[in-house]
Amino acid sequence: MESWQFPQGVHPNTSKPAIEPMASEASVPKREDFANLALEGPEPPSLSYELIGMLRKAVRYRSADKHFTLSVCAMSILHSLFPILEWSKSYSLKSFRSDIMAGLTLASLSIPQSIGYANLAKLDPQYGLYTSVVPPLVYTVMGTSREIAIGPVAVVSLLLSSMVQKIADPTLDLASYRKLIFTVTFLTGVFQFAFGLFRLGFLVDFLSHAAITGFMGGAAIVIGLQQLKGLLGLSHFTSNTDVVSVTRAVWVSVHEPWHPENLFIGCSFFLFILGMRFIGRKNKKLFWVSAIAPVLSVALSTLMVYVTRADNRGVKIIQKVDAGINSSSVKQINLNGPYVTECAKIALICAVIALTEAIAVGRSFSVINGYKLDGNKEMIAMGFMNVAGSLSSCYVATGSFSRTAVNFTAGCKTAVSNVVMAATVMVALELLTKLLFYTPVSILASIILSALPGLINVQEVCILWKVDKMDFFTCMGSFLGVLFGSVEIGLSVAIGVSFAKVIIHSIRPQVQILGRLQGTNIFCNIKQYPMVCQTPAVLTTRIDTSFLCFINAKFIRERITGWVTEKLDEIRSVVLDMSNVANIDTAGLAALEELREELLSHGIQMAIASPGWQVIHKMKLARLIDGTGEAWIFLTVGEAVEACLASKKVKGGDLEC
Amino acid sequence: MESWQFPQGVHPNTSKPAIEPMASEASVPKREDFANLALEGPEPPSLSYELIGMLRKAVRYRSADKHFTLSVCAMSILHSLFPILEWSKSYSLKSFRSDIMAGLTLASLSIPQSIGYANLAKLDPQYGLYTSVVPPLVYTVMGTSREIAIGPVAVVSLLLSSMVQKIADPTLDLASYRKLIFTVTFLTGVFQFAFGLFRLGFLVDFLSHAAITGFMGGAAIVIGLQQLKGLLGLSHFTSNTDVVSVTRAVWVSVHEPWHPENLFIGCSFFLFILGMRFIGRKNKKLFWVSAIAPVLSVALSTLMVYVTRADNRGVKIIQKVDAGINSSSVKQINLNGPYVTECAKIALICAVIALTEAIAVGRSFSVINGYKLDGNKEMIAMGFMNVAGSLSSCYVATGSFSRTAVNFTAGCKTAVSNVVMAATVMVALELLTKLLFYTPVSILASIILSALPGLINVQEVCILWKVDKMDFFTCMGSFLGVLFGSVEIGLSVAIGVSFAKVIIHSIRPQVQILGRLQGTNIFCNIKQYPMVCQTPAVLTTRIDTSFLCFINAKFIRERITGWVTEKLDEIRSVVLDMSNVANIDTAGLAALEELREELLSHGIQMAIASPGWQVIHKMKLARLIDGTGEAWIFLTVGEAVEACLASKKVKGGDLEC
Repeated sequence: MESWQFPQGVHPNTSKPAIEPMASEASVPKREDFANLALEGPEPPSLSYELIGMLRKAVRYRSADKHFTLSVCAMSILHSLFPILEWSKSYSLKSFRSDIMAGLTLASLSIPQSIGYANLAKLDPQYGLYTSVVPPLVYTVMGTSREIAIGPVAVVSLLLSSMVQKIADPTLDLASYRKLIFTVTFLTGVFQFAFGLFRLGFLVDFLSHAAITGFMGGAAIVIGLQQLKGLLGLSHFTSNTDVVSVTRAVWVSVHEPWHPENLFIGCSFFLFILGMRFIGRKNKKLFWVSAIAPVLSVALSTLMVYVTRADNRGVKIIQKVDAGINSSSVKQINLNGPYVTECAKIALICAVIALTEAIAVGRSFSVINGYKLDGNKEMIAMGFMNVAGSLSSCYVATGSFSRTAVNFTAGCKTAVSNVVMAATVMVALELLTKLLFYTPVSILASIILSALPGLINVQEVCILWKVDKMDFFTCMGSFLGVLFGSVEIGLSVAIGVSFAKVIIHSIRPQVQILGRLQGTNIFCNIKQYPMVCQTPAVLTTRIDTSFLCFINAKFIRERITGWVTEKLDEIRSVVLDMSNVANIDTAGLAALEELREELLSHGIQMAIASPGWQVIHKMKLARLIDGTGEAWIFLTVGEAVEACLASKKVKGGDLEC
Repeated sequence: MESWQFPQGVHPNTSKPAIEPMASEASVPKREDFANLALEGPEPPSLSYELIGMLRKAVRYRSADKHFTLSVCAMSILHSLFPILEWSKSYSLKSFRSDIMAGLTLASLSIPQSIGYANLAKLDPQYGLYTSVVPPLVYTVMGTSREIAIGPVAVVSLLLSSMVQKIADPTLDLASYRKLIFTVTFLTGVFQFAFGLFRLGFLVDFLSHAAITGFMGGAAIVIGLQQLKGLLGLSHFTSNTDVVSVTRAVWVSVHEPWHPENLFIGCSFFLFILGMRFIGRKNKKLFWVSAIAPVLSVALSTLMVYVTRADNRGVKIIQKVDAGINSSSVKQINLNGPYVTECAKIALICAVIALTEAIAVGRSFSVINGYKLDGNKEMIAMGFMNVAGSLSSCYVATGSFSRTAVNFTAGCKTAVSNVVMAATVMVALELLTKLLFYTPVSILASIILSALPGLINVQEVCILWKVDKMDFFTCMGSFLGVLFGSVEIGLSVAIGVSFAKVIIHSIRPQVQILGRLQGTNIFCNIKQYPMVCQTPAVLTTRIDTSFLCFINAKFIRERITGWVTEKLDEIRSVVLDMSNVANIDTAGLAALEELREELLSHGIQMAIASPGWQVIHKMKLARLIDGTGEAWIFLTVGEAVEACLASKKVKGGDLEC
C-alpha cells in the first residue's frame, strides 16, 4: 500500500480517535496540515487587478507577433476589419459560379420580400429595395459569415414602424416619419458598432433564447394580423399592434363595404406559395421552385390585374414606385432634433433585436459549415453596414433567416452571393419599377404571411415546457406581452422575467443536507442520493450559492438555525460545506459570525469545510478566522465531520457510516 | 484494510487501467456504479411542488397543537398578534420600578428630540410630541422588542419633508402639506403591515448593510446642514437637501443681515450637551447626565431668553405650541386625491427605511439580551402603530437608535418604559406647552446636531474598504448620492449598485482550473493551492456558478474552449466539475451541448462530474445524456479524470499525480 506523499512530507497519523475513519486508517493525514493548506494559500487577485486584467484583455491586439511594428499593427487591424482581404485570396472561379446561382435565387426572393417589408415598415416600396443594396455590399467586405443574407426583415420592420409612428404619423407626415427612420437607422448602426468595439457582445445574451422564441412568435402573429389590412384591402386600420385593437379594427372595417377580390388574390397566391414550398421540401432538387414562387406570384398577379384592370373594381395596387438606385439621405438624418432621445431608445432596441437575429442566423449556419463566427467582429460589420445604409436611404438591415436558408440551400460559397443579389436588385430598381405599378397590395401581404411560419417555433416551446418551466414562462411572458401589449412591453417582460429568474435564484438558494456515501469519503445531498447515511450528532450542510451576500445571507442562516432548533437535543456540531461559495460580501460574513454565535449559545460547534479563495481571504480580513478558530476550518467535508465526531466523542450509531 | 461497502455490494475491481489510482488500488469501485448513482436518483421536486410548499409554509399556523379547535386557533392568533398577553403574566413590581425610571429618563430625551424632529419634518412642534404618544402605546401591546424606544427619528423626518414638499410647499400651504404627511403615514403603516402579513421581510434585506451605512452617513450630514437654518437664525433657506444647494443658500444668507445671537446660543448648548455626554461615557453611573442634558438645555435657554427678552434682539423662538393631547386626523387622510400614487411611492420608501432602522435597532439589543426578534411580527406591529398614528395626528414613527440606547442603559425591562414615556409626554402636552413659547429655535438645531454623530459610522466604512471593495463602493455610492443628489437618488444608487453586484457575479462567474492534491482524491483550484499537480492530457475545470443560465452560459463555454485551443495538441479530455451548479436553464443546456460538440470536433472527450440534482434531471429531459453518453457522467472528479486517462491510455508523466 502506498503511503501519503504530502508536500510537507507528513506521515500517516496513527493516533486517530475511536471512530473508524475512511477506507483505511493510514490514508488520512493529520487534519492540521490540510487546514493549513486552506488557511495559508496565496492572496486572491484584488478587484483592481482583475479590472485591469479585463481591460487589458478587451483592448489587446495581436501582440504575440514578434516583429511588432506600426505597419504590422495596421495590417493586422485592416485584416481584422475586412475579412475579405483574407478569404478573397483563395477565391476560385468555381466558387464564383456557385455564388452567382445562389445570388440570383436569393434576389428572386429578396425583391418581393423587400417590397413587403417596406410596406410593413410603412415606407414606400423602393426603400425596401434600397435596403437590399447597400447593406449587403458593406457586409460582404466586413462580415465573417459566408451564408448570411442581408436585407430588411419582418420583425425589425414591425419594431421600427410600431415605435416611430408614435413620434410622427406616416399617414399625415411621411417626410418627417422617413427622417426619423433614417435617424434611428444611423443610431442603430452606431450602437451596434459600439457593442462590437467595446466587446459588449454579452449584452445580446441578456435576451435569453426562451425570451426570443416567445418574442418572435408574438411578433409573427402581430405581423400576420397587420397583413389583414392588405389582404382585405382595408383603407382604415389601427396603428396599434396588439390583438385586441387589430381585431376591433378589422371587425369595424368589414361592416363597411369592402372588396373581396383583394382577399381572393391574396389567398390564392398564399396557397400557391405554400404549395410550391411543399414541393421544394419533398424534393430537395426542386427547392428553387419554392425560392422563385414569391417573384412568380408578383409577376402573375400583376399581369392578371393589368389584363383585367381589376384595380378599377376595388383591387388595391402599389401604383408608383420610384425608379433609380439609392439616393443620398445624409441630410435627412437629424441628430439635434427634439426626438433624438426617443430615437436613441428605439435604436437601442432595434440594435439588440437585429444583432440577436443576425448572430443567431449566422451562428446556426457557421456551425453546419464548421467555422467560427466572431460575435464582436460581426457587430462591427453590422454597425458599419447600418450607418452606411442610413446615409443611402436604407432602413435597418440584418440577417434574414428565411433568405439565409435559401442562400445556403442554393449552394452559396461566400458572401459574394450577397453582391450578386445586390446587383440584381439594382438592375430591378433601374429597369423594373414601372412594371410594379399594377402589383396588387394583397400579394405583398401573402408573401409576408408565407414567411411568418418560420418565426413561430412551437416545437421549441414544447421543449421549454418539458425541460424548464421558468424558461417556458419567460417565453410565454414575452409572447403574450407582444400579442396583447406592444413590442416594447413584450421585450420588457422578457428581460424582466429573465433577470427576475437570476435574482430569485440568488435570493433563495438551495441549502442541502449532506450524508456520507457508505464506505467512501463522498458527501452527497440526502434527497438526491437517498442511500447515503447521516450522523445524527453532526448536521452537514452545503450552501448552494456562488455568492453569499446581503440578499441570501439571512435566508441561509435562518434555514440552518431552523434545522438545528428542530433537533436541538441531537445535534452537537454543524459542518458548513462552503465549496460552492466562490465569493462573499460583508453581509455574508456577518451572517456566518451570527450563525456561529447562535450555534455556540446552544453549545453547538460550527466547522467550515473547503472555503473558496475569496471567502477564506475575506474571512481572514474580517477577523472571522479568530472567531471560528483556525482549528475548525477544513479542506474537505470528510475531515470536518471526523473532527466534529472526534471532539464530541460520539460513539455507537455513527460508526456504521 | 477494509473493503468498500457499496450499497449494491460491488467488490473491488482489480482490472483497473495502467494508471496508478488513489491511495490504494482496492479502494476504487467500478465507475459504472457511481455513475448509476448520479443518473438513477429520484426526480427533484417540481416548480409547482416547491411553490405550493413555500405558500403552505407562509400561511401555516400552529397546527402542531393536537386539539385544534377554532377557539385554540383564535387564541393562538391573538397571542401571536399581542405578545403582551404572554409577557405580562410574569411582569413583576421590580420590573415596573425599573421601567418607570427608564421611561422617565427616556421622556426627558424624547420631548426635546420630538420637537426638533417635527421641525425637521417641517411640522409644528406638537406633532413631534403627538408621535411620541400613540405609536409607543400601540407598540407596547404588539411589539416583541423589550428595549426599543418608539417615536419620530431624524432620517425618516428628513425623508418625509424632502419628498412631500415637492408635492405641497409647507411654507405656502401648511394644511395641505400636513394632510399629505398623514396620508403618507397611513400608507407607510399599510405597507409595513402587508410586509409582515405576507412574510415579505426579505424585502428589507435588499438594502444591504453597506448601503444603509452610506445612506445614514449621507442623511446625517444633510440633516446637519439643514440645521444651519436654525443655528444661524436664517429666514430664507433652500428646500433642496443636497450639499451644493444648501451651501449656496447659506452663502447668500450670511451676506444679508443676520443675528449671531442664535449661533451663540446654539453652539454653547451644543458644546454643553457634548460635554455632558462625555461625562456620561467616562462614568457609567452618570449616564443620566447625558440623557437629561437636552431637556436641561431647553429649560435653561428658554429661561435665559425669557429673562433677557432676547427674542426682541433677533433670537428666533418657537412661539405658540398647541396644548392638549393628540386630536383625531381621520378626516385629513385622503386616499382619493390626485397625489395618492406619489404618496404611495413616498410611503414605500419610508416603510422600508423605517423598518430597516427599527429592525436593526431591535435586533442589536435583542442579541445583547439573548432573545429572538420575529421580523414579520415586528413589521405587523410597526404597521399597526403607524396606521393608528396616522389617525391621531402622528407622522411616521419607528425605533430610534439613540433613545433605545438610553432606554437600555437606564435599565428598562419591558416595553412598559414606552408607556411611561408616552404618559410623561402626554402630561407635558397638557401642562408644559405654554412654557415652550420662548424656547429658541437654535436650541432645537443643537439637539438634533448632537444626535447625528451616532448615524455616521466611519469605523464601519473602514472595515468595508478593508474587507470588500464592492461593498465599500455601494456604501460610498449611496453616501454621495444622498449628499449631492437627494435621498431618493441615494437610495436608488444603493439598491442599483447592490443588485448590479449580484448580477455581475452571475454574468462573469469564475471558472477554475483544478489540480489534484498529490496523493489524494481531492481536486483544488490551481491558483488557490499552487502545490497541486495537473495532468496535461486532462483539463479539469470547475464552474463556479450556482445557476448556469443565459447570462453566463456563453461566457463559460468560451472560457473553456479558449483554454482548450491554447493547448490543443496536449489536451485529450476535458472534465467539467459541475458540483457547484445547482440549476441550469435551456440556454445552459444548449451551451453544454455546443461545448461537447466543439470539443468532439477537435477529438476531445468531455466528461461531467457530480452534476446537481436539477442539472442531471434537466439533462435527461433535454436528452443531453444521450449526447454526452451515460458513460461520461461521473459522481466525482477523481473518477472522471481516471476514466479519461484510462480511455486515452495516457502514460508517463501523469503517473506521478
